[in-house]
Order: sequence, then structure tokens, then C-alpha cells
Amino acid sequence: MRVPVDLAKSYRLLNHGPVCLVSAAAGGRQNVMAAAWVMPLDFDPPKFGVVVACEAFTRELVEASGELTLSIPCRAQVDLVQALGTTSGRDLDKAARYGLTLTPGSRVAAPLVEGCVGWLECRVVPEPHIEAAYDLFIVEAVAAFAEDSAFQNGRWAFARDEQRTLHHVAGGSYFVTGEAVTAAPERL
Amino acid sequence: MRVPVDLAKSYRLLNHGPVCLVSAAAGGRQNVMAAAWVMPLDFDPPKFGVVVACEAFTRELVEASGELTLSIPCRAQVDLVQALGTTSGRDLDKAARYGLTLTPGSRVAAPLVEGCVGWLECRVVPEPHIEAAYDLFIVEAVAAFAEDSAFQNGRWAFARDEQRTLHHVAGGSYFVTGEAVTAAPERL
Repeated sequence: MRVPVDLAKSYRLLNHGPVCLVSAAAGGRQNVMAAAWVMPLDFDPPKFGVVVACEAFTRELVEASGELTLSIPCRAQVDLVQALGTTSGRDLDKAARYGLTLTPGSRVAAPLVEGCVGWLECRVVPEPHIEAAYDLFIVEAVAAFAEDSAFQNGRWAFARDEQRTLHHVAGGSYFVTGEAVTAAPERL
Repeated sequence: MRVPVDLAKSYRLLNHGPVCLVSAAAGGRQNVMAAAWVMPLDFDPPKFGVVVACEAFTRELVEASGELTLSIPCRAQVDLVQALGTTSGRDLDKAARYGLTLTPGSRVAAPLVEGCVGWLECRVVPEPHIEAAYDLFIVEAVAAFAEDSAFQNGRWAFARDEQRTLHHVAGGSYFVTGEAVTAAPERL
């Protein structure tokens, strides 16, 4: 079940560096792309950096709307992630082609991708120079959600292996998020 | 054995979102801090975004030298990573306290941390506004290396579990990089 995540803890959805799906909507059109280059930039209010290449159809929608969502996919969706990252919304309706279920954001028009395990609804903090120079968008999260069986007490706690998040290597190669380890610095 | 990595493929050292150690040196002083908020921004020339908080001692050294290195630690070093991320070089000599072996960079003065599995030597691309507003530094890699038993043919291929990279959750909690999976989008 999708449950809200405290915004001050929402950086934890992405702190471990998983691949994301970036969605945006504008003028009656919407699209979803895969993006590996996404990371937190601040805790509270939560900010993130998201690279959206200048040729991406999604970028047009982000620039037109000033909004995007980040949906965090899981191992069960690895084929979908790869397909969404290697096709363009200019050429096909990805939602129809790949059978996506898109639901409206609660605070932004950009949709959320069902079947994922975490979601962030974001507004762009305009930074025209770095958007142009590095394809880098600064966004602030205004709502955050997670699948409650995968994210508990403010931390990822994947109940099933199929819920584990993905880390992109290159091409169609990914790692799943692995074993949890706890540091004991006092051992040093 | 540490071997060079083709700069055009060096983004792959960080594409999966592992935690890094950021090192810098200036005026005869050096320091190492842990940083989870590091990601690629471009392929070739390879650029990366690195968040270095304004209160960090390492930041002074980065700003004074215009250089930093990223050393990518592995599971065997999780206690060290946590210690380096929760102490300040203003208060203690981390290299001495934690028994670090630091070796000079090949193209920058900032040192590399021995025992890690990947290394990037970087020069700062000055962007004063985003450095001040978001603590975000844009850097360009000028040399890259990897432990050859862990990174082969341009990809991570951890020979031993102790070489697996780390992903920070929060506090002393980490995930190790898990199982490799390959997408088959044609199945969709």
C-alpha cells in the first residue's frame, strides 16, 4: 500500500543511489523516462538534483510545467526500466506501449508510476544556467510516498527480493540493492 | 592491483550510486570525508556533481586547491567510512587516527585512499552560485583507476564480497551493492 513519507526523511528514498523514473506532464501530454543521475541535495526542505538530457521529450514537459515526479522502480520492473530508458516519448506513447498505470500526483500534475516502491512529487527550483550547462535540474520535493511493505520506519526494508531497488551500471546491466550492513566505527 | 580506467568509461565507477570518500589537500594539509551525494553529470569529458557541506574542513581544502579525489570504498571498509563521515578533520588527523594510507594523485595534489576499489582524480569546474546555494561542486575527472579484481572490462565485477561497494542509507546503515541483473526489454 502506498503511504506518505515524512518530507524531512524523504531523502532516504534516494540516498542509496537507485535508478529512477522521471515523469512529467504539460499541455495534455505526459511521459516517463528512466534516469540514473538523480541524488539528494538537501534534507529539509528536501531538494534533489536530476539530470534530464536536453533531447529528452520529458525535458520539454518539465520545462513547460516546472514539475516532475520521481518513481523508484524495483527489481520486478527491470525490463520496464530499460524499455523506458531506451525509447522516446516523441516516437511512441510509452504508457500505452508498456502498459503503464499512471496515477495523478497529489500536489503536481506529473503522474506517478504504479508498481514502483517509492515516489517523490517535485517542483523545479529554476536555475537556468545549470539546466543549460549540465542538463541538471534542482527540484524540491513537496510530497513523498513509499510502498509500506518495502519502506518502514523511515528506511528501506524490502519485504521481498522483487521489491529491491535497482542501480544502473550501463546498457541493460543493473545491480539490485543488496544486503544491509551496519557500521561500528568504535571498532576502529 | 590499481589499473587505469578509460576516462570515457569512468562514469561507470559511480553510475550505480555508491558512497564515496572525498579527499583534498592544500597548504600542506589534507583530509578525507565520506559523501553519499555524488553522481555523474556527463560522460566525456566525465563530469560529476559532489555535495560538500559548507562546514566541512574538506571544503576549505577543495576551495583552496580547486581539486579533489573520489575514492570508492568497499564493504571491508564500512566502519572506516562511517568514522570518516562522523568526525571532522578540524578536530583530529583522520589519516593518523584511522590508519589511512594516502597516496598522491597522479594529476592532482589531493590524495587517494588505499584499500578502496575505485578512484577519480578531479578538478573543480567553478560554479560559485551553486557551490554557495546548494553546496554542490561540479568536477571534471582527469584520471580514473580501479582495482582490477573488482572492475573488469569497464564494469564492476566484484571478485569477492568484501570488494562490493556501499550505498548509504542513514546513520551507520548501509547497503552493499547486490546481485547483477540484466534487463531484456524485448520481453515487454
